[in-house]
Amino acid sequence: MHAAPVWDTLSARFGKRFSRNAYVRKEHSQSLTWLPAQEPDAVVFATSAAEVAEIVRLCAEHQVPVIPFGAGTSLEGQVNAPRGGLCLDLSRMNKILDVRPDDSTVIVQPGVTRKQLNRRLRDFGLFFPVDPGSDATLGGMASTRASGTTTVRYGTMRENVLALEVVLADGSVIRSGPLSKKSSAGYDLTHLFVGAEGSLGVITELALRTRPLPEQIVGGSCPFPSVAAAVEAVIGALHLGIDLARIELLDEISIRACNAYSKLDLPEKVYLFVELHGEANHVKNQANLFGELADDLADGPFQWTTLTEERQRLWTARHDAWWAIHALYPGRVGIPTDACVPISRLPECIAETQRDIADAGLHAAVIGHVGDGNFHLLIMIDPNDEAEVDAARRVVHRLSERAIKMEGSCTGEHGVGQGKAGLMRLQHGGALDVMRKIKRALDPYHILNPQKMLFDGDATK
Amino acid sequence: MHAAPVWDTLSARFGKRFSRNAYVRKEHSQSLTWLPAQEPDAVVFATSAAEVAEIVRLCAEHQVPVIPFGAGTSLEGQVNAPRGGLCLDLSRMNKILDVRPDDSTVIVQPGVTRKQLNRRLRDFGLFFPVDPGSDATLGGMASTRASGTTTVRYGTMRENVLALEVVLADGSVIRSGPLSKKSSAGYDLTHLFVGAEGSLGVITELALRTRPLPEQIVGGSCPFPSVAAAVEAVIGALHLGIDLARIELLDEISIRACNAYSKLDLPEKVYLFVELHGEANHVKNQANLFGELADDLADGPFQWTTLTEERQRLWTARHDAWWAIHALYPGRVGIPTDACVPISRLPECIAETQRDIADAGLHAAVIGHVGDGNFHLLIMIDPNDEAEVDAARRVVHRLSERAIKMEGSCTGEHGVGQGKAGLMRLQHGGALDVMRKIKRALDPYHILNPQKMLFDGDATK
Repeated sequence: MHAAPVWDTLSARFGKRFSRNAYVRKEHSQSLTWLPAQEPDAVVFATSAAEVAEIVRLCAEHQVPVIPFGAGTSLEGQVNAPRGGLCLDLSRMNKILDVRPDDSTVIVQPGVTRKQLNRRLRDFGLFFPVDPGSDATLGGMASTRASGTTTVRYGTMRENVLALEVVLADGSVIRSGPLSKKSSAGYDLTHLFVGAEGSLGVITELALRTRPLPEQIVGGSCPFPSVAAAVEAVIGALHLGIDLARIELLDEISIRACNAYSKLDLPEKVYLFVELHGEANHVKNQANLFGELADDLADGPFQWTTLTEERQRLWTARHDAWWAIHALYPGRVGIPTDACVPISRLPECIAETQRDIADAGLHAAVIGHVGDGNFHLLIMIDPNDEAEVDAARRVVHRLSERAIKMEGSCTGEHGVGQGKAGLMRLQHGGALDVMRKIKRALDPYHILNPQKMLFDGDATK
Repeated sequence: MHAAPVWDTLSARFGKRFSRNAYVRKEHSQSLTWLPAQEPDAVVFATSAAEVAEIVRLCAEHQVPVIPFGAGTSLEGQVNAPRGGLCLDLSRMNKILDVRPDDSTVIVQPGVTRKQLNRRLRDFGLFFPVDPGSDATLGGMASTRASGTTTVRYGTMRENVLALEVVLADGSVIRSGPLSKKSSAGYDLTHLFVGAEGSLGVITELALRTRPLPEQIVGGSCPFPSVAAAVEAVIGALHLGIDLARIELLDEISIRACNAYSKLDLPEKVYLFVELHGEANHVKNQANLFGELADDLADGPFQWTTLTEERQRLWTARHDAWWAIHALYPGRVGIPTDACVPISRLPECIAETQRDIADAGLHAAVIGHVGDGNFHLLIMIDPNDEAEVDAARRVVHRLSERAIKMEGSCTGEHGVGQGKAGLMRLQHGGALDVMRKIKRALDPYHILNPQKMLFDGDATK
């Protein structure tokens, strides 16, 4: 890495949009989790694909690492700079370029955020369904293969990205595929870049799939005596073809936290929060059907409403659960993790994890996108108690191993970054070598977000 | 290529499951279309992943081409052997290994056919939705990224393959991903192998997504004064969130053919054939809603039924359209092709193509998966009239160019093989080089289905 000439060139070319300021650099490293921040040497704010291409080409010439950056909301150290280099901030590429309602397609720059997009789409009677909670950028969401509460019905970014414009490691610009809904022409490059965490190219434009705003939304909640009973209700609903739009599991601790923080008054039990989208009569029928189905398994009635205010109270509480759980444990900070297993294994996976937490004497909350077999663990630690921090890390590691053993994934939606890089061999076996061959073929000097996902050493150092 | 020792070894090892018989070799080349058959030098019938690995390893050592073969129903020369080599017939790997209703997952060997799978799934109240018409094998369907009439609701193979077991070009065996519904851990290898037409690896096992059998199916048809009016009705239905399970466009010639062959008695107009799946009251309401919407645009009423026999009469006619169109033009053979564009461009794309056909004095029928912007053209030629064959090929080529210019794809579901290899640069630009780099990285000696999709010369020769 011969960075000095790169900094000189970028400074001359981009003026105030280039910075080596300590505060700006700090802002562009991992900040939300237990992973130590690793700052880039410099930050540049790009405003077009041509600029991104120019920047990457320059960095490639001098073998300077390039770390793409959106809103910085990733949780596994994806935006850290373990080898220094340049943070390529795309947040100013935030134009919604073209809404095409007839084609259910919208074309955006990578710095557009989810909420910004949905504000615009609302005027067309449309929305973009993927909802990871935070107001992430769409480029970042694609790169992390993000998902969230609505995946059970609408899919993850995998199912909702139609095509990408990408700047490759040599600075060339390609389109990953056509804008038609289908294509059988050639390798599926779109899905190769989705989830690659910026390690194969920098996304400079996205064509996304939009959906019609539902005529009616039903929201409701139902208590259960156990996680197993709740999951059984969900499996039953999926069997019956009930088209769940959201189905979230909250454990007793999460409910206690939401009660306190968001002024709910639910009994401290395991809960399912449910949402249904569709034609008015249909969703009411489906809600009743879910209620009947749940009745045999539940620990109380399924209470639902079509009133926007009541429904939003529930879902705002769900979205604020991160803060609510933090508020429940003053002075402690959360170590977040997620895992995903075939849904039939979910009760067992959660039960073993909860035993593990109890055995370690830790405090943790479980919240799950149960329709997908995906759940979050938020372990609330005292950051000054090294033994507790280590215990929490061991619980996370064992959860990852457990999920992999159950034919699942060590992460359903947070991604790999640095935090889960050490698990890739266990999860993928020989397939990891295929990934590395692809990486080498497309980025021979390892300049794109290096020393993360596919790294062979300890990526957290 | 030093094939002789390979044939000796395979013959000794596999006995009657290895053949160099002329008839067997002929059966294992392209047979359904205008592309000339190119026979392999030998055929082997594998019965396990271990055998596939052994065979591929042997061929790799001697740089003998390996061409995976399922049911041989592909249409673009995917199973031809332009460089000779070994046809690896997987049709005897036809076990349904594990049905997991709670996980909406079924695990199959690649030689299982679509109809075989659906017969088994029916006992569980489930089905596998992807329906390309022919009774293809699931390994072949994955490799061609197949789709068909139900894609508008259930997606293509892209959306319905959960994970794969694959034998790579060096004979090693990998799993492309976990069996959980989601994963953010690493590159999406599953989607790289889906649609690769056997050029990156041989699929030896598939985990597929199943769906609950719908409580009620409604089928119906509606005539329109033009393709444009029919497409407008479809766009309107998608806007309203009507959950179309099938929506097929048939032009006047297709209707004439279906009337004669399948004893329908429909006026010779442009038609939409519609199917809706779901809860009984809901689908009836949706059918009525579609009828109201279509009323302003149609050239007659939307007539629908829940009666299985009547519904099946319509859809059997649709599925037999290939034969019906052939029967309409005795002595002629069909050149089939397909293209896919953003749905808003579909009327223009079809209209220009129909003008092109008329100008060339050709006979052709148009049938479209209109909800996906995908349509088929079946040009009925006199195979002994060279000028007509050339004219038909020019029409196909211009259609491909037109679809690409409209931001679509030169093929929505038939794939590339040899027939569309010459269009890859036009469609993909620099992205073709990325595909070639991946191919080189994973198959450095180009032994897997060589001289097809990514080939630089004339792949049809």
